[in-house]
Amino acid sequence: MSNAVSPLAVPLPELPPLAGVRMSATAAGIRYQGRTDVVMMEVAAGSTVAGVFTSNKCPGAPIDWCRTSLKGGRARMVVVNAGNANVFTGKAGRDACAATAGAAAKLAGCQPRQVFVASTGVIGEVLPHEKLVAVLPALHEALAEDGWEAAARGIMTTDTFPKASTRTAQIGDGTVRITGIAKGSGMIAPDMATMLCFVFTDAKIPGDALQTMLRKGVDASFNCTTVDSDTSTSDTVLLIATGQAKHPRIPSADGNAARNRMLADFARALNEVLLDLALQVTGDGEGAQKRVRIDVTGATNGRSAKRIAMAVANSPLVKTAIAGEDANWGRIVMAVGKSGEPADRDKLSIGVGGVWMAREGAVIAGYDETPVVAHMKGTEVEIAIDIGLGRGKATAWTCDLTHGYIDINGSYRS
Amino acid sequence: MSNAVSPLAVPLPELPPLAGVRMSATAAGIRYQGRTDVVMMEVAAGSTVAGVFTSNKCPGAPIDWCRTSLKGGRARMVVVNAGNANVFTGKAGRDACAATAGAAAKLAGCQPRQVFVASTGVIGEVLPHEKLVAVLPALHEALAEDGWEAAARGIMTTDTFPKASTRTAQIGDGTVRITGIAKGSGMIAPDMATMLCFVFTDAKIPGDALQTMLRKGVDASFNCTTVDSDTSTSDTVLLIATGQAKHPRIPSADGNAARNRMLADFARALNEVLLDLALQVTGDGEGAQKRVRIDVTGATNGRSAKRIAMAVANSPLVKTAIAGEDANWGRIVMAVGKSGEPADRDKLSIGVGGVWMAREGAVIAGYDETPVVAHMKGTEVEIAIDIGLGRGKATAWTCDLTHGYIDINGSYRS
Repeated sequence: MSNAVSPLAVPLPELPPLAGVRMSATAAGIRYQGRTDVVMMEVAAGSTVAGVFTSNKCPGAPIDWCRTSLKGGRARMVVVNAGNANVFTGKAGRDACAATAGAAAKLAGCQPRQVFVASTGVIGEVLPHEKLVAVLPALHEALAEDGWEAAARGIMTTDTFPKASTRTAQIGDGTVRITGIAKGSGMIAPDMATMLCFVFTDAKIPGDALQTMLRKGVDASFNCTTVDSDTSTSDTVLLIATGQAKHPRIPSADGNAARNRMLADFARALNEVLLDLALQVTGDGEGAQKRVRIDVTGATNGRSAKRIAMAVANSPLVKTAIAGEDANWGRIVMAVGKSGEPADRDKLSIGVGGVWMAREGAVIAGYDETPVVAHMKGTEVEIAIDIGLGRGKATAWTCDLTHGYIDINGSYRS
Repeated sequence: MSNAVSPLAVPLPELPPLAGVRMSATAAGIRYQGRTDVVMMEVAAGSTVAGVFTSNKCPGAPIDWCRTSLKGGRARMVVVNAGNANVFTGKAGRDACAATAGAAAKLAGCQPRQVFVASTGVIGEVLPHEKLVAVLPALHEALAEDGWEAAARGIMTTDTFPKASTRTAQIGDGTVRITGIAKGSGMIAPDMATMLCFVFTDAKIPGDALQTMLRKGVDASFNCTTVDSDTSTSDTVLLIATGQAKHPRIPSADGNAARNRMLADFARALNEVLLDLALQVTGDGEGAQKRVRIDVTGATNGRSAKRIAMAVANSPLVKTAIAGEDANWGRIVMAVGKSGEPADRDKLSIGVGGVWMAREGAVIAGYDETPVVAHMKGTEVEIAIDIGLGRGKATAWTCDLTHGYIDINGSYRS
């Protein structure tokens, strides 16, 4: 397995403490040796929580646990392990969630349903949760305000770099912070792209408002990215608000115009954090050497544009061409056509790196290939597709498909 | 680019002459050097024809040409070139089809719309049809009853072996023959799997009966296979009946029970030829080292079963696991779940190579891994999935996803 860091890696940003959040990580040897693999995140009593989960019809036991827990609307703790996804593990899987949450709840002094659990890694092997439970007291002891980097590293599986993002936002005259960590990096596809993402804020926001903003933010970020079209059984995004920051009170009634105005800047910052994390995940797609942005315009509507963008983003032939630094716009045409969305070959335009190469159904005679060739050699590739039928537009992100993907996934369990 | 022959290659079967069919091939240097790349197939006057084409919304100019020509119901000639797909070539593409068909029609002494054309290869480059037209007279001179192998080789692109299949069938007391040739081997996905397939029979069968049987046969063969989920803009299956064999007359009225009975054995043999060719194409998927058969049972209905089977067949993570000889049934669970079809994780069973590994939502404790490991080392991998909900069943075929696929497609144009 290749351990080379993705050329799209970014340095971990500075992550200042966030009031009401403490983290720790340790090595429990669940699967990996010589690295941390269990993370604890504790939040202040009274924290509200929102969550978005995988659309996969065969989700892991932790997803079931979190969905049920989310109904309570409150969180005190998140426990995450890497190396074993606790998926398709039957009653043993459910027992593992209950045992982990129960033990963590005792440490936090809360109800088990205020503990959220997430697992990522191999599917179908029973999670040795006694190893996980055994390290919880030490994790609890080690909780620290500056534990962000340890947590971001502890949740990694085949990720080649830790992923975090932080922003501030204004709520009235109060400043709040939003900080998230995430992991990828295979089994990444629309309708929950990332496998795991945890976002925290010190704002005090009702759960229903959190949930609405998270759903919108995820749809515009993670759900517009794909690495390999495979949808994980474990995808989880949690957003937890500790309510420790000072700012004007957010009204509790949903759909309120005044409330939406108050939260506008928060929603902006949240969307930025989610998109930043989603792009980091895409840039660390298994084997990724290039990140690809696909802008579709002129589709019959936005939904159609998104489907076209995702069809291109998921095409193995487009992705291998990009790996080969070949601006093969013919394969892009193929992918547009296979989406099944309204498209008229003779109205279609394709551009790469800001240069239109094909217009109205044929190559543009004598277009300047030099800047396109240079663009394809870079790590960020931009594809523009104009359908020429309407005003629908959408953007999707993916990465190239390389030998690294085969290396990683042809030997994952061995 | 790897030129190693697929380990799933089969020898070309003996292909006896088929009354009313002559073929030839030559090298026109359209893209490839040092190999044949243009094929002519001539059929007897009065031959009926049926066709099934790609579902891609941005089809190539030859698809448009064939769809229109098919309305006439008669064929005299098929001209095929390899190396350039004549797709997304605008007016130049339409002109190329008309010029080729026009020149071929003069040689055959027929209408241009009785000439069918097919092109495969790179997309978006203008087909230098003058090179193609220039070789037509020599091809016409060289037409021969034993030209099958030359034709099967001449239509190849990244195929590593030529593909053909032949069967006989009884119509009343008459024996007829069905012989087909096909090429793959990337951009292979449901709703037209193969890029090009040409099937001939010496039976005398009305065009509407041919079309009905071809549609059914393709749905049960090519449309159940996938190499890489990408749907070519050029997929074509033609079935041509020369009417040269002696057998009782097929009634012309469609839907006639007597007619269906008369054609039952013919349909059986046709389906066998189509499935044989589809499996040869799958076994020559770009970079394929193993062919994979996926049997789904217990789905809520047949359509749902097919969608589940294709979701598994198209999963990069399942396909890379198979390349790594890893019976990673967890990834199969993931792929079942991502299909979006009704599935209950706790009723799902997964087997590999005839051994059930997981049942009712969990691994089977102590299942015998030895035969599974041995099975995974072979070139034919069988996956069984029981959904446990109903009686719907379906089978799909695919190949593994290997470094060879990346090699071939990351450098196709260079």
